[in-house]
Amino acid sequence: MLINKHFKLLNQLKQKKNRHELRLFTAEGIKTVHELMAAGLDLKYLFATGDYENPFHSEALITVDSATLKKISNLKTPNQVLGVFQIPLRTDFLRTGLALALDDINDPGNLGTIIRLCDWFGVDQLVCSNNTVDCYNPKVVQATMGSLSRVSIVYCDLEEFLKNDGRPVYGTFLKGNSIYHCDLQTDLILVMGNEANGISSGIEKLINEKITIPGFSKEQKTESLNVAAATAVILSEYCRRMR
Amino acid sequence: MLINKHFKLLNQLKQKKNRHELRLFTAEGIKTVHELMAAGLDLKYLFATGDYENPFHSEALITVDSATLKKISNLKTPNQVLGVFQIPLRTDFLRTGLALALDDINDPGNLGTIIRLCDWFGVDQLVCSNNTVDCYNPKVVQATMGSLSRVSIVYCDLEEFLKNDGRPVYGTFLKGNSIYHCDLQTDLILVMGNEANGISSGIEKLINEKITIPGFSKEQKTESLNVAAATAVILSEYCRRMR
Repeated sequence: MLINKHFKLLNQLKQKKNRHELRLFTAEGIKTVHELMAAGLDLKYLFATGDYENPFHSEALITVDSATLKKISNLKTPNQVLGVFQIPLRTDFLRTGLALALDDINDPGNLGTIIRLCDWFGVDQLVCSNNTVDCYNPKVVQATMGSLSRVSIVYCDLEEFLKNDGRPVYGTFLKGNSIYHCDLQTDLILVMGNEANGISSGIEKLINEKITIPGFSKEQKTESLNVAAATAVILSEYCRRMR
Repeated sequence: MLINKHFKLLNQLKQKKNRHELRLFTAEGIKTVHELMAAGLDLKYLFATGDYENPFHSEALITVDSATLKKISNLKTPNQVLGVFQIPLRTDFLRTGLALALDDINDPGNLGTIIRLCDWFGVDQLVCSNNTVDCYNPKVVQATMGSLSRVSIVYCDLEEFLKNDGRPVYGTFLKGNSIYHCDLQTDLILVMGNEANGISSGIEKLINEKITIPGFSKEQKTESLNVAAATAVILSEYCRRMR
């Protein structure tokens, strides 16, 4: 049965600060919850409606009615289960291969899509500036469709990270060398900038190679691609050439 | 001054049926509204707060206070202007080059991103199945960032369209020939499927070439890429090879 301490906890977990202090986050929907369980994430509570079949025989199961699920859900249309998982401790990164770095990505949907892209293209190092939206934000968790458990994500002072890493730093700009013709190294860090402002001036100073996705429109008026779409194009081109 | 007939109209335009009967749609924010005006779209009303500078000297201007703008806006944070534009009449498509076809895309953000991608990569034929979300839905209009005026979009019975067009039909599936190695013709139709169900069985029968974006993850567990991200990868690869 759902009791007051559960309501209180679920309410707390709406705030980034609390999620990280308690090292807990919520995920919803059978697909996402099962992917996180299958990946071995520690499940604290599994709130589910009576028709949920519990294929993992989880002892964390707490049955609730659909009105209660709707009350605790972050979704418009809740889908049978809401899980509370422990945030995994991250191990240190390798400093070889491709790392993707995000300079203040704001939109949860964009971050979720980028995490799915990392999973698809085998990029297992995702470095986020401290102002990037929290990857345990419920909207991000939903948008990752379970990929969250398969990509290592760290939040840090991005300038410090880039200064100390040693790999060449590539950044996407409206003007730069074409991604289709530029030199791509096996080991590199690719920086993608904020949705509205692009790469910040502090980070720009640390970029070794400015790259761009050339437009093919007759009259080039589009200001930029959506950041997740641009990430898709660049990761695809890197993988096409490297692997 | 905003009067009852304006409130009534704006309310009507929240429904797809009314938008198409009246051939009108709304767009918000200075950037989007100005891009649509610059593209020559017929502006019926321009509701703007007192601080709006009206650089196009539009006679459609109706000044409103910010409380009223908030009331008529579809955005959480309205941005100075809301325009009511006439839906342009579309001319017939060429039947050469690349056409992108959408088989029941549901999410307004995805359709908006795909329209921006078409604009960026110079794809000026976008064919949507009748069940694809309306491109004049306010959320789609916002997500296109003005690209809406530069891409020709038709809604039709997609099966009939594909049967009659004559170009080879490519479709994206989880299993197919790698996009990096398959034959790409200059003239082709690329079909992208619904977010949850992919390409429908009726359309699948009309596909001449099944293609896929190979994953590079060590353990390939991601079920699929976001449809807009997948569209970005394929349009990029087409343009890289063709142009």
